[in-house]
Amino acid sequence: MQKIAELSGVSIATVSRVINDNGRFSEETRKKVLDVIDKYQYKTNAVAKTLRMSKSHTIGIIVPDIGNEFFSTIVHGIESNLFEKGFSTFICNTDKNKEKEKSYIKSLDSKMVDGLVYISGQEEIDDSLLSRDIPTICIDRRPRIKKNLAMVESDHLEGGYLATKHLLERGCENIYVLTKQNNISSVNDRIKGYKEAMEETLHYSNEDLIIKVANDFKFNIEITRKAINTIIKDNKKIDGIFATNDWLALNAVMALNDLNINVPNDVKVVGFDDDTIAKYCKPSLTTIRQDVNSIIEEASDILYKSLIGESTSLLDNHVVIPVSLVTRETT
Amino acid sequence: MQKIAELSGVSIATVSRVINDNGRFSEETRKKVLDVIDKYQYKTNAVAKTLRMSKSHTIGIIVPDIGNEFFSTIVHGIESNLFEKGFSTFICNTDKNKEKEKSYIKSLDSKMVDGLVYISGQEEIDDSLLSRDIPTICIDRRPRIKKNLAMVESDHLEGGYLATKHLLERGCENIYVLTKQNNISSVNDRIKGYKEAMEETLHYSNEDLIIKVANDFKFNIEITRKAINTIIKDNKKIDGIFATNDWLALNAVMALNDLNINVPNDVKVVGFDDDTIAKYCKPSLTTIRQDVNSIIEEASDILYKSLIGESTSLLDNHVVIPVSLVTRETT
Repeated sequence: MQKIAELSGVSIATVSRVINDNGRFSEETRKKVLDVIDKYQYKTNAVAKTLRMSKSHTIGIIVPDIGNEFFSTIVHGIESNLFEKGFSTFICNTDKNKEKEKSYIKSLDSKMVDGLVYISGQEEIDDSLLSRDIPTICIDRRPRIKKNLAMVESDHLEGGYLATKHLLERGCENIYVLTKQNNISSVNDRIKGYKEAMEETLHYSNEDLIIKVANDFKFNIEITRKAINTIIKDNKKIDGIFATNDWLALNAVMALNDLNINVPNDVKVVGFDDDTIAKYCKPSLTTIRQDVNSIIEEASDILYKSLIGESTSLLDNHVVIPVSLVTRETT
Repeated sequence: MQKIAELSGVSIATVSRVINDNGRFSEETRKKVLDVIDKYQYKTNAVAKTLRMSKSHTIGIIVPDIGNEFFSTIVHGIESNLFEKGFSTFICNTDKNKEKEKSYIKSLDSKMVDGLVYISGQEEIDDSLLSRDIPTICIDRRPRIKKNLAMVESDHLEGGYLATKHLLERGCENIYVLTKQNNISSVNDRIKGYKEAMEETLHYSNEDLIIKVANDFKFNIEITRKAINTIIKDNKKIDGIFATNDWLALNAVMALNDLNINVPNDVKVVGFDDDTIAKYCKPSLTTIRQDVNSIIEEASDILYKSLIGESTSLLDNHVVIPVSLVTRETT
């Protein structure tokens, strides 16, 4: 504003009044100021505009890992839907790192985004991070209760239940769970579903059958091989594995293969997500399909309606999307 | 500033002087203004700060398809590298749509990003879009010459040459190219490499052997099947296919499989990229590996050094990263 004031020969206060169209100034002054703004392209400076309007027509998406197919598909879908409706999306990748999450939320906050899609990498969302009260949709990670916040997620419990029921129906009796060493609600629910199915059919479930591997990478066959080796070496029976994601399932299939244990004859394996890899790996994976399109539609819809002020009550919603079993060669 | 001026009982011009630490004001005035700024958290408003400093410590990445593994890996890598060095990254997905590209570049421009990684989806980059003169790295799509712009890409020509040479060495004589109907420099170079190898060994190359399929999707087996059907039906000989990406190669393998043509005995197939799918599909794909890590390192390094003003001459660079042949089951 100082620069504009200098160039148009008026005071900063006058420039401010013209920009905000607020207070007294002559038509001549308005023209002078607007000409300078035009000439030096201050007009296109959306930063100044945002500061004035507090409506940036942008949203932010916090995503734990843009390289994960499930997340990148969701991000892509929401971006496309909202762009068509006039909102630009800034995508921020956090590597599941809490400090990065904090930093990016602050950053988006200060860029005055109008809304947020928040896919946290944390076990528990620290919603105090969200300082401005803007419409926020959480996907797959439950936040503590907060105003202006909706939750969209797959029916993870049903998924774990369906996977385990399928293994039981295929005759498995010693079903292990293969999962990562984190404690997020979506994975906990999948394991809860496993336990429910086990107890319903076999009238027991056993924490010892839940194997947690440190798997920070997309594919780490060594760690999975070691875990499965330990089970076999201890002469424990195993005839089924429910892996809480497709990459773990694929790891397990390859580890079993290396040990000359036949999938599906000796051990049957079910994954989770229905990533592209599940269909094209050999043997192809039986898995639980998350309905990514519905997640995208619901999240975009709730966020959009809140952004345009059509329905803020939607933000109290907790939408649970049904999952389905896809049977392939590993069972 | 108007609000701060009101609350601290000084003029807007004084507020401006205090914020910019520029001009005359008493220590008492400074304290009064800063107290108001503190109290109402104007301090944390990075929008105002950006306007003042023109250094946002943010960069933007324009990416044609965040769902594409090659791109998402690059974006992820650059984001991680630059975050460690104090820069936040806003990722913008353009769906290869020119209007979206324009809109996001404008949007990032007006958010005052300090630098840009530009992976265009266009056949020719319209560099007039880049209105602010900020360090810009183009990956995989060549721009027309512009100041402050570097180019990092794989050696696509060598890749096409290596793929074709490999098929020739395996005894193929009727080698088709399977490619998409676009005209970007990276794909054109791959085809040029194919022609060079053909001419070097067989002393001819034939435009009729280059099949362009309309493949907008990750996986569209019908279109590929139709293309291959046409070749077979016309009694044309075919014993090798160089597909310009791994998904096209996988399409081709499945289409050949459906026609009871054995891969690799009857027809050998080479892909491009070395996506994860190439390793885990069955038969696993022989392909040209792009050295994604080197692309990430080079792009991050050039951009970072330019951002901190260490070396702007790097921006004239055109870095070409070597590729390599990965031999698997399809050849």
